[in-house]
Amino acid sequence: MKNTFGQSMSVTLFGESHGAAVGVVIDGIAPGIPVIPEQIERQLQRRRPASSIDTPRREQDPFQILSGVFEGHTTGTPLCISIPNENTRSKDYCYGLARPAHADYTAHCKYHGFEDFRGGGHFSGRITAALSAAGGILIPALRNIGITIGTHILTCGQVKDRAFADAAADIELLQGRSFPVLEEACAETMTQEIQQARMDCDSIGGIIQTAVCGVAPGLGEPWFDSVESQLSHAMFSLGGVKGIEFGMGFDVANHRGSFCNDAMRMQDGRMYTETNHNGGINGGITNGMPIVFQCAVKPTPSIAQTQKTVDFIKNENADINIHGRHDPAILRRICPVADSVTAIVLCDLLAQRYGTDYLAKGREGSCSTV
Amino acid sequence: MKNTFGQSMSVTLFGESHGAAVGVVIDGIAPGIPVIPEQIERQLQRRRPASSIDTPRREQDPFQILSGVFEGHTTGTPLCISIPNENTRSKDYCYGLARPAHADYTAHCKYHGFEDFRGGGHFSGRITAALSAAGGILIPALRNIGITIGTHILTCGQVKDRAFADAAADIELLQGRSFPVLEEACAETMTQEIQQARMDCDSIGGIIQTAVCGVAPGLGEPWFDSVESQLSHAMFSLGGVKGIEFGMGFDVANHRGSFCNDAMRMQDGRMYTETNHNGGINGGITNGMPIVFQCAVKPTPSIAQTQKTVDFIKNENADINIHGRHDPAILRRICPVADSVTAIVLCDLLAQRYGTDYLAKGREGSCSTV
Amino acid sequence: MKNTFGQSMSVTLFGESHGAAVGVVIDGIAPGIPVIPEQIERQLQRRRPASSIDTPRREQDPFQILSGVFEGHTTGTPLCISIPNENTRSKDYCYGLARPAHADYTAHCKYHGFEDFRGGGHFSGRITAALSAAGGILIPALRNIGITIGTHILTCGQVKDRAFADAAADIELLQGRSFPVLEEACAETMTQEIQQARMDCDSIGGIIQTAVCGVAPGLGEPWFDSVESQLSHAMFSLGGVKGIEFGMGFDVANHRGSFCNDAMRMQDGRMYTETNHNGGINGGITNGMPIVFQCAVKPTPSIAQTQKTVDFIKNENADINIHGRHDPAILRRICPVADSVTAIVLCDLLAQRYGTDYLAKGREGSCSTV
Amino acid sequence: MKNTFGQSMSVTLFGESHGAAVGVVIDGIAPGIPVIPEQIERQLQRRRPASSIDTPRREQDPFQILSGVFEGHTTGTPLCISIPNENTRSKDYCYGLARPAHADYTAHCKYHGFEDFRGGGHFSGRITAALSAAGGILIPALRNIGITIGTHILTCGQVKDRAFADAAADIELLQGRSFPVLEEACAETMTQEIQQARMDCDSIGGIIQTAVCGVAPGLGEPWFDSVESQLSHAMFSLGGVKGIEFGMGFDVANHRGSFCNDAMRMQDGRMYTETNHNGGINGGITNGMPIVFQCAVKPTPSIAQTQKTVDFIKNENADINIHGRHDPAILRRICPVADSVTAIVLCDLLAQRYGTDYLAKGREGSCSTV
Repeated sequence: MKNTFGQSMSVTLFGESHGAAVGVVIDGIAPGIPVIPEQIERQLQRRRPASSIDTPRREQDPFQILSGVFEGHTTGTPLCISIPNENTRSKDYCYGLARPAHADYTAHCKYHGFEDFRGGGHFSGRITAALSAAGGILIPALRNIGITIGTHILTCGQVKDRAFADAAADIELLQGRSFPVLEEACAETMTQEIQQARMDCDSIGGIIQTAVCGVAPGLGEPWFDSVESQLSHAMFSLGGVKGIEFGMGFDVANHRGSFCNDAMRMQDGRMYTETNHNGGINGGITNGMPIVFQCAVKPTPSIAQTQKTVDFIKNENADINIHGRHDPAILRRICPVADSVTAIVLCDLLAQRYGTDYLAKGREGSCSTV
Repeated sequence: MKNTFGQSMSVTLFGESHGAAVGVVIDGIAPGIPVIPEQIERQLQRRRPASSIDTPRREQDPFQILSGVFEGHTTGTPLCISIPNENTRSKDYCYGLARPAHADYTAHCKYHGFEDFRGGGHFSGRITAALSAAGGILIPALRNIGITIGTHILTCGQVKDRAFADAAADIELLQGRSFPVLEEACAETMTQEIQQARMDCDSIGGIIQTAVCGVAPGLGEPWFDSVESQLSHAMFSLGGVKGIEFGMGFDVANHRGSFCNDAMRMQDGRMYTETNHNGGINGGITNGMPIVFQCAVKPTPSIAQTQKTVDFIKNENADINIHGRHDPAILRRICPVADSVTAIVLCDLLAQRYGTDYLAKGREGSCSTV
Repeated sequence: MKNTFGQSMSVTLFGESHGAAVGVVIDGIAPGIPVIPEQIERQLQRRRPASSIDTPRREQDPFQILSGVFEGHTTGTPLCISIPNENTRSKDYCYGLARPAHADYTAHCKYHGFEDFRGGGHFSGRITAALSAAGGILIPALRNIGITIGTHILTCGQVKDRAFADAAADIELLQGRSFPVLEEACAETMTQEIQQARMDCDSIGGIIQTAVCGVAPGLGEPWFDSVESQLSHAMFSLGGVKGIEFGMGFDVANHRGSFCNDAMRMQDGRMYTETNHNGGINGGITNGMPIVFQCAVKPTPSIAQTQKTVDFIKNENADINIHGRHDPAILRRICPVADSVTAIVLCDLLAQRYGTDYLAKGREGSCSTV
Repeated sequence: MKNTFGQSMSVTLFGESHGAAVGVVIDGIAPGIPVIPEQIERQLQRRRPASSIDTPRREQDPFQILSGVFEGHTTGTPLCISIPNENTRSKDYCYGLARPAHADYTAHCKYHGFEDFRGGGHFSGRITAALSAAGGILIPALRNIGITIGTHILTCGQVKDRAFADAAADIELLQGRSFPVLEEACAETMTQEIQQARMDCDSIGGIIQTAVCGVAPGLGEPWFDSVESQLSHAMFSLGGVKGIEFGMGFDVANHRGSFCNDAMRMQDGRMYTETNHNGGINGGITNGMPIVFQCAVKPTPSIAQTQKTVDFIKNENADINIHGRHDPAILRRICPVADSVTAIVLCDLLAQRYGTDYLAKGREGSCSTV
């Protein structure tokens, strides 16, 4: 469905980098979910460029809730959040000269020259502000029913954070981190790595790792709506993501079944596995263990070096020097976006499985209909 | 949509390993596509266990076309293929004892004990015969309009095939391979690797690599229906797949932007890139270069060793010894399935973009409606 | 989604009148629903041509359950029922001469001559056997959770049955009727009306009325998935249906608001309305009163008179004389189909609202996941 | 999909009557469609309360285009239009006392008391302003490719307009009408009828009739996405619509097949029918004749009389006297909305059939991708 994701609870994205606004419509959300502006603001703040390692473009994200909230709670009808664009400098962009590894050329082919090319238009990372705003409602709602989500930078260039160990505790640990890493020292070394890339007029990629705790076993739909299918579908909407793996992921290629299989044990009537090589998912369905996955995030395509490219208007080879304000790495800023995207997927899976009211279970309702 | 994938052209899967049949309904396929039983049979034959490295279970797959084909061509209405199950030995399975890394436990949690557990039921790799049958129609149809698809085993245990180089030529090369590798010698060494795993009462995983040639630039839909989103969604329906990456994939974490960005060049009015680190996709949209992706395939969970598990009926720890007939590696057999799944995704993307008749473009029609 | 209907629980139809089989895949049905062959057979028998007023074509409908049922219950995975075609006489049909008011010409325009034209192909009423088979599972399942459905012929030519009064009781009354009318005497007079039409080499239409009891208030989704939207969408899949109205329907045009508004009353904590002019639905959402709607069913297009038509192969005017075996009215046979379609819609609406397990609520499950 | 309609081109609605704004996101629209504010304004103006027969609530609808338009044309990415609410008087509403035939009670049951009840909230006719704004883009776009749409009031209380005769000419005739009727004299008599209802503290219903010209044969998808299915689905999203019929509609019950069947003729290689009793649709697919359908519109539920109702907070019977500003008939204002809804359905059907670029066919593109 193009810019709409989700079957029971869905989100629809709109907006361009240099247009009037970016935004999101959340439909099918349970009525009675608290909507706390500070939580939306916090999630927006987490993805906002803030320090020396991010783009100097200042985004204040003064979001507006246009619908779907009444007296501080979701109504159950579509919730639209609009985030007006400010501080845009369209003169940084001109048409025809494709930025390598960006969507300039492909958008041109798809939209025949009618695309809003300024700042990447609809393909801009700016749209992830809308995803983050949605997360500002959904992540706390999931927490209310015992589901927590956290994402950290696993590798940033040559610097490596440790992987999730006790996922539940590690997620809580991340709540207090302004730089999303588990090993606190990595904040400093990763920042240096990113600054070095900037000084080299270059950019760096890395891997982020996400964990979800508290999901009951039995969630997911074979064949095509496996939990992996849903999460990967949503995560690959982010332009910088070029790979996703669950549990051991690609490392399964280096091991045998006797290693990859997670030994199952029963404790107090609950199944757990001694290892979590399958990332909490078997046959596309949750098994009650933490859902763990890694995403490969490519280096920011915009770099301050002359690059070989094409002018697709003149149909000829050209060189390009990209000016403007760009992040040498989006790793820090993509973490809260990954949390938000994960929350969207889970809210939808839960609503599909347990019904549209499930996300608000536990809240007092004034009418019993079943 | 659970067991249905695709928005304009869709496939719906049904069946259990030890039930009456497995099958597929293809809906929205263009009318006038040739349906050649030998091509379906060939695709089924490619995934069939055949040699010393596969399960000794013999599957003859005598498929039946129940609808949607008339005088050798698709009608445009739903095309149902049913593949009756034969040679099933249900006594190999008993209920309650979960096979580690299989869906036994998760299916139990989801279906509350009503699932057909025999042979993995609906979670069995047997269902991929239905996907392959669909591929037997769609892969040739895509070839007719200039789009070719090929999948080979990139790594099998410790043995490595070379990666796609000239993708178009390599895809043709794979047409003649009974064992899907580019370096012919790998057939022998990989077979040995698999046999060794069997002798060790173990199983091995690996990585498969798929390439698609001939796709015009401009295919794919931001944000949520990027080409990566669609392909990953479909590929993760396969139980053994635990990771997917496009182009360089996870290797982007080891490189800088100046390396990862593909230099763009214009030749004879067509854009190409000097490298293809982005796997033919920028911003979720095809750029005209070959689409290339890798999938991590885990070792077959069923191994002939005693494993720690749970009995989820008795709610207690248990040991399990899996008998029955199982592949020590599904790498060879999953390649034609990957081709088929890729074909399904592309046919749907093309139909969404260019309309329901596109797949049959070039065929003579008797009525002009536009 | 073309031949697939439903968002949480969906049905996919396949088949042609003179092909190998017609059938249905039900996906997303709750696990643990009893599947009783006699109930499927009964529903098929209700739509089967049986008496002097129907086509002499004999259909035995020896259905096969290909998947999704294990030990007498739904597994929760796709349930495929195939009904092989028998007793087909393809020589009754030739290509190019369009039967007026049939889909011959429109199918030709859509499928460019590749459609299976024999007996109407995929447009044949024969496909409704598959819908009826689905009803044979879903209607009893709904009854198990307190929801009952009934359809009767409200008008057949000039003969009028009474409308639903006490809908719950009237639905039970219809269970015992071989000819679906509330006033028993109508069976005789309607049969005469139909026989008269046949003797006149003509056919007749009428109106059917459907009621659903036991639906809790609060079901339905604004704006686009109102209960009326969903039911009308599904009912208009039946080729003979040319109108649908809820409650008073078109008669609202003859009355004022003071009459059309249903006075609301509270009794024992439950709301009811003194009249049911809105057919149990306000603002697209159920209000707890019986859902009542009427469908206009056109006279069977195939009549034994010479008709003016076109030959769309020769592109010229022509006369057509339709031979073959046809019903002079489909009113009796469409009633069980309407019940089945209604059941499909309700099962999906319930699954969307209350989750995928809801239809089986009350059954014993062996695992508690929430 | 709740508040989203359409599979290839979709619209998503949001907003409440007394919230910050109502709006619409159009996704999947072809790039290059002219977006002319005056045309949007004209469509909004047509549905705006304007005269003595409408609510005295003044709506200026100062719409804002938040995204999806660049240099006067659609970009092909989501187009969001927001219409801020003004002139709201929330004190006219209180909670618990259900207005009969409104969604107050059903919304309460569905949303458990969290719904924004002011002015009907999300169920308010106010949301149709967003649909109309979408129509302001889509209706002219369809006209550019030869498809025209018109809706008139067929009956208003006891006053009857003539039905469409030469549909193409009648649609043009309606372009010049401020009161949407074919017989100009009906404007006066219908206005009197409505004013009389107001003086009687009552409201009146009626029937509207819509025609679409210029649709090629072959559009529509059996079984479940027939043209009737799609149009009825969308039209029943409008709260006041209680019935829909195509062509003769319910009148088929009064006639025989020899009358209802439309005789087919060939002229200059094009098929036409001598009558259009089937409303341009056979077997769910367009036949090239005008699509014609009628919708029953119920009298406005809000009337200035004491009505029996319930207080669903106190769980007791009550009387209600509705104050506030209400239309005694929505017939005039619903006509442009019906045009807009019809345009949405057609644009989606065309995009499904012919691809996402079809709506802009004929426009100059700067890149050829196929």
